[in-house]
Amino acid sequence: MKHTKVKDLLNSTKILQEVTAKGWVRTFRNNQFIALNDGSTIHNIQCVVDFENTPEAILKRITTGAAICVSGDLVESQGAGQKYEIQVKKLEILGDSDPEKFPMQPKKHSLEFLRENAHLRIRTNAFGAIMRVRSALSFAVHQYFQQKGFVYVNTPIITGSDAEGAGEMFQVSALPFDNTPRTEEGKVNYKEDFFGKQTNLTVSGQLEAETYAMALGQVYTFGPTFRAENSNTSRHLAEFWMIEPEVAFNDLADNMDLAEDFIKYVVRYAVDNCADDLKFLESRLADEEKQKPQAERSEMTLLEKLNFVLDNNFKRVSYTEAIDILKDSTPNKKKKFQYLIEEWGADLQSEHERFLVEKHFKSPVILFDYPAKIKAFYMRLNDNTEPGKETVRAMDILFPGIGEIVGGSQREERLDVLIEKMKTLGIDEEELWWYLDTRRFGSAVHSGFGLGFERLVLFVTGMTNIRDVIPFPRTPQNAEF
Amino acid sequence: MKHTKVKDLLNSTKILQEVTAKGWVRTFRNNQFIALNDGSTIHNIQCVVDFENTPEAILKRITTGAAICVSGDLVESQGAGQKYEIQVKKLEILGDSDPEKFPMQPKKHSLEFLRENAHLRIRTNAFGAIMRVRSALSFAVHQYFQQKGFVYVNTPIITGSDAEGAGEMFQVSALPFDNTPRTEEGKVNYKEDFFGKQTNLTVSGQLEAETYAMALGQVYTFGPTFRAENSNTSRHLAEFWMIEPEVAFNDLADNMDLAEDFIKYVVRYAVDNCADDLKFLESRLADEEKQKPQAERSEMTLLEKLNFVLDNNFKRVSYTEAIDILKDSTPNKKKKFQYLIEEWGADLQSEHERFLVEKHFKSPVILFDYPAKIKAFYMRLNDNTEPGKETVRAMDILFPGIGEIVGGSQREERLDVLIEKMKTLGIDEEELWWYLDTRRFGSAVHSGFGLGFERLVLFVTGMTNIRDVIPFPRTPQNAEF
Repeated sequence: MKHTKVKDLLNSTKILQEVTAKGWVRTFRNNQFIALNDGSTIHNIQCVVDFENTPEAILKRITTGAAICVSGDLVESQGAGQKYEIQVKKLEILGDSDPEKFPMQPKKHSLEFLRENAHLRIRTNAFGAIMRVRSALSFAVHQYFQQKGFVYVNTPIITGSDAEGAGEMFQVSALPFDNTPRTEEGKVNYKEDFFGKQTNLTVSGQLEAETYAMALGQVYTFGPTFRAENSNTSRHLAEFWMIEPEVAFNDLADNMDLAEDFIKYVVRYAVDNCADDLKFLESRLADEEKQKPQAERSEMTLLEKLNFVLDNNFKRVSYTEAIDILKDSTPNKKKKFQYLIEEWGADLQSEHERFLVEKHFKSPVILFDYPAKIKAFYMRLNDNTEPGKETVRAMDILFPGIGEIVGGSQREERLDVLIEKMKTLGIDEEELWWYLDTRRFGSAVHSGFGLGFERLVLFVTGMTNIRDVIPFPRTPQNAEF
Repeated sequence: MKHTKVKDLLNSTKILQEVTAKGWVRTFRNNQFIALNDGSTIHNIQCVVDFENTPEAILKRITTGAAICVSGDLVESQGAGQKYEIQVKKLEILGDSDPEKFPMQPKKHSLEFLRENAHLRIRTNAFGAIMRVRSALSFAVHQYFQQKGFVYVNTPIITGSDAEGAGEMFQVSALPFDNTPRTEEGKVNYKEDFFGKQTNLTVSGQLEAETYAMALGQVYTFGPTFRAENSNTSRHLAEFWMIEPEVAFNDLADNMDLAEDFIKYVVRYAVDNCADDLKFLESRLADEEKQKPQAERSEMTLLEKLNFVLDNNFKRVSYTEAIDILKDSTPNKKKKFQYLIEEWGADLQSEHERFLVEKHFKSPVILFDYPAKIKAFYMRLNDNTEPGKETVRAMDILFPGIGEIVGGSQREERLDVLIEKMKTLGIDEEELWWYLDTRRFGSAVHSGFGLGFERLVLFVTGMTNIRDVIPFPRTPQNAEF
């Protein structure tokens, strides 16, 4: 007999005869009440066992984590908290779970312990909820762009180009590591490698996406990107998923509009489609907040934070304005910042971003028009700036509790200005011949941004460590599973 | 003034005053008629220039590939083949394209030449169409699974596990290649590498996806996978995208149902949503077929082939039946096969698969119940087979012109049988401790499959070389861009 998903049983509009459910036992109380979960929803269905007519040997095998199949009638539940339950007529143990050995017992486990058991943590309420929300957010990303006529582009993961300058890269090779072939000069001879050259894992698909935007108009990527930076923090992963839209004929203002509209769409999608999971995550966060000193607790619940983002315009502030605000700020004057803001040109640290977002504006903030010196080579140089105060059409979106969630820019569309900038920075023109072709042939104003998907998931789920919002996190010293 | 997409202009229900379009010049005829494309559709919009009142210097810059902005009225076209055209009142050159240098001139280029210019080939009709269809198919994949309640899972790209046995792997490292740190025995000391161990690029997310299916019930992956195999063929890529659903409580018959329903859904989605692009690709294919000798030409047009898949049940055939058919076949008897089929147990070659699909059944075929010896360790051993004729619950879906498009199986859910199999094959149990945990705790029947996305795109677009259906192909000796 075909089984029915727990979600569909719980959402039934009427009682039903002879239903079958399959799933995993979460708890078994009083030799009678099984809380059964199959992952289709955070809610369990209560299965009431006729324990007097069930062999003792079977009852003993109904343990946390065991896979079972139950058949019986879906009836109105007498217990609190659920509309329906299954009056079990037939019960089959599909797979046992030795209670002495199963690590995911029904008690609170630390997040650290759960990370070490990343293959089993998905069997907890919290991780089931997080990963369902992550999946819904992914779909919202695709739906948003597809509805707007963007073309999804899979830019390459293995790249022969290391000129993007976005950070340390992992190298990819099929050479025998213990005994690499060498050139006469004693260097590794990459001509003998799989691709005939040195290759790395991509840090961004932007440059390739630009070539597509200059033909298809509106494109986006959504794929894994990599940083070999030894950052052992709660905000960094060595392998993470990034979304990079790129749009021909968009200027920086259009780019900000797109980013804000996009973020609101996907957050709204989660609010509308993941109500049960978000409610659970909200109470999880509330419990976590209770452990903190009063002063450090968030003023808003998780759903209040999400609705705040939906209901308010992101504050758009130029870098120059932000520097003025920071110079005059109490923590700067009282020397509470680790890095004091003394003059225009300073790179903003996370403490400054947090002050602007969490204390000063109390809202998501879009900072734009950054000093050219602290930004990437491909960003559009502003016209008519003071010498020494050149700025580029860059923008970063800063979120409360998360920091930078989006980095983007209008791109430098002028071939001569772009080449000049690359020369200054020592970036090899020949390496990027194909990128420069976009400016040689039919160049036009265009813009794009990158959004770190896990930071978005962090924000929406209210989790605080990025390792808890991706199934199998990759960080320094950790590539388990 | 905001511009309107060419697609929206061509789909307008009425004439319009003062519209603006931006895009790239495809052709410019008689100093008067611009064919303008912006990538939103395969169709160009005709822009009629008032050449008598346009400076000669501007007219000269309207060249193939140039980016322009035109404003004027959308009026009914007098010319054939288009409903509307723009009577240009204002024209601005955004970015020039030197006709002496721009490689994508309006003539037929060879696919080889276009591959060398993968950053510009997207400016041709064919590649615009292919990549829009690819994008639509991607979205259909997500929509299909999300509508059915599957959870999208991002399995890791960098993996510490090399036990999957699906093929040669690329190694990933942050060590200095020219001078790797060594152990006392002279081996590379991976303890000093980023992850503290040797790591590779994933060949499949299946094993990790199984751990998620055993908690969330229905999951799917859709991400890049890698093979360091030196296969320089029109069917292999070193980097390709794979879709891997995995479903708890599904047996092999459910798995076949899911695969067939899924493929039909996504093909249907393309037929319904990419009519213009498929029509173009159909005529492109027809032209290509004309180059072939009559006997080698396909009996069906592209859309006929797609509809054939939609309208017919995939033929389900056991390996044993297939061997009987092949043994009795004319090419086997006449020794036309390169590898003659002599007995049960033989691995099927592409020539045999093609015979079954293209000659014998003339339909997509699902082959199942393969000999255990030629399939992977994790596949469910069939009960009650003859000694020496053990089979596993494997299935491959074979498509005309493509060969294997899906490989899947019911997984071995019995811990003891699985461990025994791993021992026989010398697969380290400790390496896969986490995988075995799914069988230790709450094991259950489950199944899944992998679909190579580019092979699906090949089939739907009617292209014949897999390098032409991914933006920047990675193959032996080639990681350009």
